[in-house]
Amino acid sequence: MTPPPAIVLVSGGLDSATTLAIAQSEGFSVHALSMDYGQRHRIELECAHRVVRAAGVREHSILTLDLRSFGGSALTSELAVPKDRAAEDIARGVPITYVPARNTILLSYALALAEVKSAQDIFIGVNAVDYSGYPDCRPEYIAAFERMANLATKAAVQDGRSLRIHTPLIAWTKGQIIRRGLELGVDYSLTSSCYDPAPDGAACGRCDSCQLRLKGFADAGACDPIRYSPAV
Amino acid sequence: MTPPPAIVLVSGGLDSATTLAIAQSEGFSVHALSMDYGQRHRIELECAHRVVRAAGVREHSILTLDLRSFGGSALTSELAVPKDRAAEDIARGVPITYVPARNTILLSYALALAEVKSAQDIFIGVNAVDYSGYPDCRPEYIAAFERMANLATKAAVQDGRSLRIHTPLIAWTKGQIIRRGLELGVDYSLTSSCYDPAPDGAACGRCDSCQLRLKGFADAGACDPIRYSPAV
Repeated sequence: MTPPPAIVLVSGGLDSATTLAIAQSEGFSVHALSMDYGQRHRIELECAHRVVRAAGVREHSILTLDLRSFGGSALTSELAVPKDRAAEDIARGVPITYVPARNTILLSYALALAEVKSAQDIFIGVNAVDYSGYPDCRPEYIAAFERMANLATKAAVQDGRSLRIHTPLIAWTKGQIIRRGLELGVDYSLTSSCYDPAPDGAACGRCDSCQLRLKGFADAGACDPIRYSPAV
Repeated sequence: MTPPPAIVLVSGGLDSATTLAIAQSEGFSVHALSMDYGQRHRIELECAHRVVRAAGVREHSILTLDLRSFGGSALTSELAVPKDRAAEDIARGVPITYVPARNTILLSYALALAEVKSAQDIFIGVNAVDYSGYPDCRPEYIAAFERMANLATKAAVQDGRSLRIHTPLIAWTKGQIIRRGLELGVDYSLTSSCYDPAPDGAACGRCDSCQLRLKGFADAGACDPIRYSPAV
């Protein structure tokens, strides 16, 4: 039997690398989708390429779009990335690294690609536990997107091919994600999480994302194989 | 009082030109959003510019994205545009000019722009009467998108600024749309509807979209001011 196709959103980060491995472990034939949305940390896209290649995935679509013209986020404009925040601050409120409607835009493209590729399954590595500040990472948001998607396309409405959004990481801690990824053989040295990497690609170790990553590896009892800037 | 901002999707067609005029008549300060999605009929984008300028709107964002790499539609790839179809065929089923998830992608951008511009209102000129083949033009789809949008953004979730999707044309016939637009002073000579215009920009008069437009003007008892190819 031909494995069913699935669209997997791959950012180059730890969560999406794990999600890709999970989709494959569940028997899906993966079509990876990455977005060049003018993010400042372009190393992410290189990591996405490496992660996809290492997983043996041959189909990888990159969509270029420029959210910078919209402004409003430290990830795409010139606001300063916050550093050394306490864990309780990281967990509270919407961070300034929030990109307006990013997951909605990403999932909309995934929906278009799913229709063209006759895929009924989309995987996205959102997580609502460690980092609850993004409204578009919550289960109720994902459920609402799925419901909308099933009213949006010819595939769902005319051909009865309903669409499922898979969020295997949504209720896991970072430590649980890393533990599962290591079981599945994910090479985390290929991934990048830092919001503000050095020019040589070394992670800062101090932004919210680095702090969560480091704590996740500690919780999983594993060593993070990526390089950090010497000051850390 | 400062007029409230609204995002209006402007394609360069008759429906969105009318929608823009309606948004202004309701007291909104319009920020126009158009999409260069690799459509074959690029004259549309020029029309969008003209429509926006004629309406005195100064803020006009154009987002470039390439849906062609996804394939799957006569509007963006090399499939033939159907001509001279009977009205009952036009009304039935999803046309091959359908672009996968197009309105979902357009509305996702509008949502991002609305958040950045602190707008709570988005206008889109979808219509479910004359041309019912597009699943993402139906009221139940729009309602599901609005519900998802109100779970997606910091503006809605954290700041309580809920979002409304306005579809003033959704239940109107083409004739009713044109009649209302003429009342509001819309200059339809600036708009384009043809799926397959001649190199000089003249409309073919035979594709589904031209046929609906011509019938709409006839129903409104008005003359269509655009040029059609001589064969018609």
